[in-house]
Amino acid sequence: MWSDNKLTEQIKIQYPIIQAGMAGGVTTPELVSAVSNAGGLGNVGAGYMTAENMRQTIHAIHRLTDQSFGVNVFVPEHSETTQDHIDQTNELLAPIRKDLGITPTRVDNAVSSKLFEEQIDVLLEEDVPIVSFTFGIPPKIIIQKLKAASKTLIGTATTVEEAVMNEENGMDMVVVQGSEAGGHRGTFAVPFEKGMIGTMALVPQAADHVSIPVIAAGGIMDARGVRAAFALGAQGVQMGTAFVTSVESGAKEQHKNAILNSTEDRPVITSAFSGKPARGIENKFIADMKQHERDLPGYPVQNTLTKDIRKAAAEQNKLEYMSFWSGQNTRLSRNINAEEIIEHIVKEINERA
Amino acid sequence: MWSDNKLTEQIKIQYPIIQAGMAGGVTTPELVSAVSNAGGLGNVGAGYMTAENMRQTIHAIHRLTDQSFGVNVFVPEHSETTQDHIDQTNELLAPIRKDLGITPTRVDNAVSSKLFEEQIDVLLEEDVPIVSFTFGIPPKIIIQKLKAASKTLIGTATTVEEAVMNEENGMDMVVVQGSEAGGHRGTFAVPFEKGMIGTMALVPQAADHVSIPVIAAGGIMDARGVRAAFALGAQGVQMGTAFVTSVESGAKEQHKNAILNSTEDRPVITSAFSGKPARGIENKFIADMKQHERDLPGYPVQNTLTKDIRKAAAEQNKLEYMSFWSGQNTRLSRNINAEEIIEHIVKEINERA
Repeated sequence: MWSDNKLTEQIKIQYPIIQAGMAGGVTTPELVSAVSNAGGLGNVGAGYMTAENMRQTIHAIHRLTDQSFGVNVFVPEHSETTQDHIDQTNELLAPIRKDLGITPTRVDNAVSSKLFEEQIDVLLEEDVPIVSFTFGIPPKIIIQKLKAASKTLIGTATTVEEAVMNEENGMDMVVVQGSEAGGHRGTFAVPFEKGMIGTMALVPQAADHVSIPVIAAGGIMDARGVRAAFALGAQGVQMGTAFVTSVESGAKEQHKNAILNSTEDRPVITSAFSGKPARGIENKFIADMKQHERDLPGYPVQNTLTKDIRKAAAEQNKLEYMSFWSGQNTRLSRNINAEEIIEHIVKEINERA
Repeated sequence: MWSDNKLTEQIKIQYPIIQAGMAGGVTTPELVSAVSNAGGLGNVGAGYMTAENMRQTIHAIHRLTDQSFGVNVFVPEHSETTQDHIDQTNELLAPIRKDLGITPTRVDNAVSSKLFEEQIDVLLEEDVPIVSFTFGIPPKIIIQKLKAASKTLIGTATTVEEAVMNEENGMDMVVVQGSEAGGHRGTFAVPFEKGMIGTMALVPQAADHVSIPVIAAGGIMDARGVRAAFALGAQGVQMGTAFVTSVESGAKEQHKNAILNSTEDRPVITSAFSGKPARGIENKFIADMKQHERDLPGYPVQNTLTKDIRKAAAEQNKLEYMSFWSGQNTRLSRNINAEEIIEHIVKEINERA
């Protein structure tokens, strides 16, 4: 099925199975290297990482694998937020902080483009062959620099138009993220509701409109999903939720258990944790904040505002305030090694080939 | 790919490709018979039909094909609506009626279970081998009567739980409708938002939990979608939007053109036309009614209230007030014969087998 595959040839991996670069501590060096060592492509979710943290993570991975791996970064966004708005939101969050026994931390309202530039510098300096982007397309100058350094660039799209924009701006491949996907929506060119296209509809339409390899994401958990994605015209798959519950994942145990025990209808779209729509398993925080969602600051301000809450909630095992990002295919999740996830897929596909 | 298929054996068709029983005039005898004559399963969308109209349609199809076909009916729902609520809604719709030069028609607020029983009587009397249901599971007595008459019964589900309920209540097969699908959501056991699961996630999870054949629906338009659905564990596919734009379809030309010219992001979920969530191409009516959606009467009252508007709008070619039901895979729609739709799929699949 995956012979003569442009994607595996270009990025020198054995199987076109990509572990999503999920930010927030999930993508440990152990997970990334396990995926790459098993023949897939591990990815560091570096969106929230400092440049120094990213560099150390890359070094750690190099000690664990000599295979290709990638780093995912967030294209920075400007969010217009006043101190008044932050104060109002902190008032809204006050009962939760009280419950957790914490006080609000100061929020740095500075724009994150400086962090992004520092991250790019590290990627240019270090041996990272693949760089992927979420939340937009990076400035032309950065694309040129990375290409000059022979990096393969992978963008993210949630509509056909966004996929075409990725190709036109020089991305070598594009992840098309269906509405089933867990975590943040990668939508950047339209309001997020317009980018809620199911994988079954998004992949063939995108594949018809770009010539770069399309990587399907959203609802893919096992060999069935991989075969379906290829049937639809994808040349690779990106799997997030499937790896969150893996042994090597850095996700908190509560997060892993929430996915492993969830039904397919419980991961809902919420902006309450980060100011940006993302799919996570419903809990009290999501339910209580729903009525206020439109009034909350945008990303990344809201993300920073809820950071202390999420951290304290995890420490105190208060599941009702934690963010459990997950796609819709929860019933297929398993707590096994990342290597086994890939091996099961490869074995089943080779048997049926 | 589709050898040794329980579904085709049981309902005696050549290919496990089912044309959805779309209500509202789309499923002409010409369309139903063309699909069945091409080896698929044509379906009458009889949800809104009188018993007599249904009987005549069945007779007309028998004159056009000797192959199996099915009839889809709506399991009746009770909607509590007061005359005050109807009056308020008519006030809301008054500017639109003024624009169209029409006056409100009297709305019969009676419950539709009488119609349903009459429809079932016709199905028992006539030679219709397959009966499918949307919006719920029919009463046990009706299931028993239809089974005693050797009908094959097909239910509709939008979650794993609903699929299991269909099997437990005696359905022989179940259509699982992913969030990509056009027209009305078949959700009946949970609020509709809980049943918005993408096809890529819904099919494998449902297939793991029932032993009856699963028929995948939502975003399937061509051989790519059919192969994907089978990879996910489906034993058949149901296609709606793909047949709406076919030559034999009874959909209005404006409806066909709206789909043929739509991008994937324009079919949105709205309750404004019928009081029940359905996916259709956004227009002024959907946009203007969005803010009032929660205040509108439920199905079937709202459907009856907007009937005159939709009819007059079609006659006057006022696209802004018409309902253009469509799934998310609009870019794959084509205005070709129903037979060609099936032939293309079969040809492409057989070539790759």
